[in-house]
This record gives sequence, structure tokens and C-alpha cells, in this order.
Amino acid sequence: MEPLDLWTTHLPAHLRAQGPRIEPRDGVGCLMVEDTVVRRFSSLSKASEQAKTFAQGASDPEGRLRDLDADGVWGEVMYPNVAFFCCFFIRSPELQVATARLYNDWVADLFIGASGRFAPAAVIPVLDVAASVAELERVARRGFRAALLPAHIDARPYNDPVYDPLWAAAQDLGIPPTFHAGTGRSQTPAHGPGGAVINYVVTVGGPMETVAYLCGSGVLARFPGLRVVMVECGSGWLAWVLHAMDDAYREHHMFVRPKLELLPSEYFRRQGAVTFQHDPVGLANIPFTGDRCLLWGSDYPHPEGTWPNSQEVLARQFARVAAETMERIVCLNAAELYGFSLPA
Amino acid sequence: MEPLDLWTTHLPAHLRAQGPRIEPRDGVGCLMVEDTVVRRFSSLSKASEQAKTFAQGASDPEGRLRDLDADGVWGEVMYPNVAFFCCFFIRSPELQVATARLYNDWVADLFIGASGRFAPAAVIPVLDVAASVAELERVARRGFRAALLPAHIDARPYNDPVYDPLWAAAQDLGIPPTFHAGTGRSQTPAHGPGGAVINYVVTVGGPMETVAYLCGSGVLARFPGLRVVMVECGSGWLAWVLHAMDDAYREHHMFVRPKLELLPSEYFRRQGAVTFQHDPVGLANIPFTGDRCLLWGSDYPHPEGTWPNSQEVLARQFARVAAETMERIVCLNAAELYGFSLPA
Repeated sequence: MEPLDLWTTHLPAHLRAQGPRIEPRDGVGCLMVEDTVVRRFSSLSKASEQAKTFAQGASDPEGRLRDLDADGVWGEVMYPNVAFFCCFFIRSPELQVATARLYNDWVADLFIGASGRFAPAAVIPVLDVAASVAELERVARRGFRAALLPAHIDARPYNDPVYDPLWAAAQDLGIPPTFHAGTGRSQTPAHGPGGAVINYVVTVGGPMETVAYLCGSGVLARFPGLRVVMVECGSGWLAWVLHAMDDAYREHHMFVRPKLELLPSEYFRRQGAVTFQHDPVGLANIPFTGDRCLLWGSDYPHPEGTWPNSQEVLARQFARVAAETMERIVCLNAAELYGFSLPA
Repeated sequence: MEPLDLWTTHLPAHLRAQGPRIEPRDGVGCLMVEDTVVRRFSSLSKASEQAKTFAQGASDPEGRLRDLDADGVWGEVMYPNVAFFCCFFIRSPELQVATARLYNDWVADLFIGASGRFAPAAVIPVLDVAASVAELERVARRGFRAALLPAHIDARPYNDPVYDPLWAAAQDLGIPPTFHAGTGRSQTPAHGPGGAVINYVVTVGGPMETVAYLCGSGVLARFPGLRVVMVECGSGWLAWVLHAMDDAYREHHMFVRPKLELLPSEYFRRQGAVTFQHDPVGLANIPFTGDRCLLWGSDYPHPEGTWPNSQEVLARQFARVAAETMERIVCLNAAELYGFSLPA
């Protein structure tokens, strides 16, 4: 949880008024970037209260290591909070780069040096691909081992070859782009009755489309060393998406471009992964997906996450899964993907 | 496959120029309604050729019964072709009603009287809910046992209580609304590399969202006798959607409105169904979904369907499924839902 004044204090003066900030609007606190309201709190005091709650466990590496130890978790890929909600709504390429860099430097200064058990994901600006590559190269030098891209870029989707230099850089640097559910589109497309249930299904399931873009368009085929991860999206849909992509590829072959050497699903099994917290459907579907593309996550420190009861949740959830399969999913896959050194 | 001149010949004179029609545009034949191009053929001759191919097996009840017999299929729910692509893009309520009625009358005249083995789905206009109810009541009198609604109405989604009279009428008449994948939104949101694969995943998976709207908003709770069917969408995603809806309902309870007596998934298991052709993932997930909400379909007469090899495809696909489960999925569920009389 980055400090709320990170951007209002440190952005260059000419960008500051448009950067991420909390502003009162109609009596409630709003998280804003440019003229976009990205989050509304129920009251102004709630906004600062929520910031405080998060800050206790989320901005202190030593406290965080104690929390991980208490939960039996060795290492974690960490995601931003304010930057997560703001960065991909920005329309100015210059402001997007500056916003991302401030977050990346803040999290690197605080967490990367503190322990190899922390692998924060660097926020990658995406409005200008040359700037994406430059920031990815910069954060690689700063020790980042994961990068955050939006799950969707509707104005210029991921099948556009314009992103090739970014995929090439990620491949060469060995940094997996991670696509977090709920980024790049509104998290609340539905309003009114059932909104919370509908928006959860639509938002959490959003990376299904991302998988189809990366596999179907040949991105994973052209960059065989590129690894990609869909985050906090659950895993229960993956078997179906792999099947549906192959069905489309075979049954609609007259419309399929480009032709691929392997089936779309085979690229994902080879290079992709999805993360889940609690998804019995995904575990039951391992015969379809294999166990190499599943990663478990605790969603720490969110209240709907499994902390501090992760071990119990895991024991229950993996009760009918072979021990070596469980070890892959809760440990080895992530360790290999992000280069965590495991304790002896 | 309705005749291409159905609307150009029979619409009231003042609507005719805007109704469904084939027009040349830039040298290719385009299926149009109002000023919207809903389908492009690769050439003008291709358009009339395709119309002819479809017409042979698809507009003749006796030929169709012979085809069903050859395929070992007793009864079928039938969907329109031109009306399917056109009707839900129409913006004029009057034209939408007139377009739907012409199709409904044509298919009733030709197929409903011919055999109880045909249950064509009536196209229901949706721009004006009073007109939806009126057409549903009219087609019920004409012997229809299924109704077609678009999977999505983005301008006024299905959680809007404005549709309650329609749900009430469908419940009282015992006619299940069916929501066919690929209706109500563009079937080709993605362009360029991988488009065919991406659009298949997005379009075929569209009814996931429809399920969340109907369950989460309390439609199925308020109308416990209403049955709903998602069509040609596959079944492999259903277990995950049921799980995700319940997860959202429980974990985000502070945002959930309305509160429901049962979990969202329980309403779908009680009142909903999905249809698939070939979906090994869906069959493997029966422990999560149960076998009452799965319906098999052949997609006859489409080339990617299973006709005339449905029996072989079924034998292979159900090889590891208990015989009584298979009988529910390929026969009894549909017979009960749509009132087919089975042969002794």
C-alpha cells in the first residue's frame, strides 16, 4: 500500500494536479486520476481510515515478513494498490510513465532490498510501447522479477504486433508479464440488482479473453521463452478456455489466421499460468490443464484472502490432490517462474 | 432457414426498406437491417449460393425428419438464421416486432403443424417489454414451446425489473426463454491476428454473464417456475461460474443486493440449463453442476455440427459417463423442459 501522497508530493510540478489523488466530490472521498473517478469511498473519513488499515500490514517489510511467517508463506508476488486502480486509466503517456515510475521506485526502495522473499510486480506503462520497454528494462536493473500489465487494452488489444518489442524484452529479461483481473476495464460494468455478483464473474473472468488474445494471435508462438501469468482470476475456467480455443482453431480453420504450429492450448500449457485462492473446480480440472500452469495465491492482506489461515485452507482444498501436485501449485511453479530461492 | 425475401415481400410497405435484406456493398453481398451490416459474404454469388445450401436441408420438414432419423435424433429445438442475425440489432420497436412476427409465423406454418418433434424457438422482440409479453402470448397460442431472447441487452440488462412481466409470462405459459450465444452483441469484437479464436471464446462464453445477471439479480428467485436455457455456449465454464457467483455472494456480502434465500448457484441448478455439442470439460464437471442442467445439441444443419454422426460423437463423448446420466443429458432433460412426447 503506497502512501496516498506519493504522487501529490513527488510528481513533476506540471503533472501533479492530474496525478493520483484523493478529492472530495459530493461529500465523499474519491480516488482520482486526471478527471476520472476510479474509486469512491462512502465518506471522506472512511478514505483515510481505509488507508490507515491497509498501511499497518502492507507498507512495512518487517511486519510483512512476520505476517508471512505466521501464515507459512515463504515468498510472494506483490501488487500495488492506488497505482493498480489508477495507472491504466491514465490517458496522458507522460503522466502514465511518471505515475508508474514513482510506484516502482517506492516499492523497490522499500521491499526489494529488504528480502528476496518479496517480488513486487512493476507497473508497466502501456500507452507508448517504446516507454513500456524502457521501463521494463529499468525495473529489471532495479531487481524486479515480475511486471504488471492491464488484463485488457481495448483501444489497442494484445493481438496488435505493436507490442512485439515489449514481448521480446520480457522474454529476454526473463520477467513474466502478469495480467491482473480487474485492470484495464471498469470493475463495475453492471449496476443495480445483483451488481456485486455479476461484476465479480465478469471481472474475475476477464483474463479468459487475455488468454485467447495471447494464444490465438501467435504472441506465445513467436516468443517461446515468454512466460505470462493471469492473476487473481481463479482457475476453474481454464480447462474450458483451452478446449474452446482449440475447438475454434479446428472447427473454424477457414477463418483462422495466423496458422500455428501447435494448438492454441499447447502454448498456454507451455508458457502460461493462472493464479487462484480457492477454486475446487480448477483443481478438479488438472487432468485437462496439467499442474504446471496453476499458481496459488493468498490475496494477503485483503480481508477476503486466506491470511492468516492459509495452511488450513490449503489442507482442506488440496485434501484430494497428490502431494507432489500440491507442491508444484503452492510452491515450485511460482519459485521457478519468479526465481525465488527456497529455504534448504 | 427462412426465405431471404420473407421480409422484403411481407413487411408492411412503410417498414420494408429498413427490414432484413441482402444488399450489395463494395462489391460483396451484405445482410442488412436498418443501416446495420450484420453479415458480409465474400461475394454476391456466395450469398445466394449459401442461401441455397442451407435451404436444402433446413426449410423442408419432411427432409428434416429424414435427416433427424438418419442421425438418431428424436426431437429438436430449432433456431432462426436471418432473424437470428438481424432481429436484435434493430433499433425501431415497431420494425423489431414486425420482423419477429414474420419469422415466427413462417416457422410455425411450416414446422409446428408438421411434427411435434420440432420445437422452433420464437423470436421475442425486446425493445418494448409490453410487446415482448404480447408476442410471447401470441406464439404460445400458435404452439411454440421455446422462445429466443438475446444473450445480452447492453442498453438495458436483464437485472432491470422492467422485464418482470416478461419473466412472469414465460413462467405462467411454461415457455423457457433461451439465450443463444452470439446474440445481442457483435460476434466479432476482435479484429486482426487470432480473431477467429478470440471471438469464439468471447462469444461462446457470453452467456456466463447472462447466468450471473439472472441468478445474482434475483430473477430466478422471484420467478421460481421460470426455466432458462443458455444455448450453443458449451458447458465447460458452468462449474466455475456457479462457484464464482457463490464466492462473490459470500465473500462480498457487504455489497450484495438483493439478499437471496438460496445461493446464486442453487437457483441455476434448479431452473437453468446450458447446451453443448462436444465439451469433455462440462461432462467431467458434473460433480459440480449436476446432470439436470446440461442439454446436448447437434447444431444441425451447420457444418461444424455433429450431424450425421451424432451417435458416434455421443458414444465417444459419453464413454465414461453413466448410462442414466447420459439419458438425462441427451434426452430426458430436453423432453421435460420443452414438452417433447417421446416414442414408446
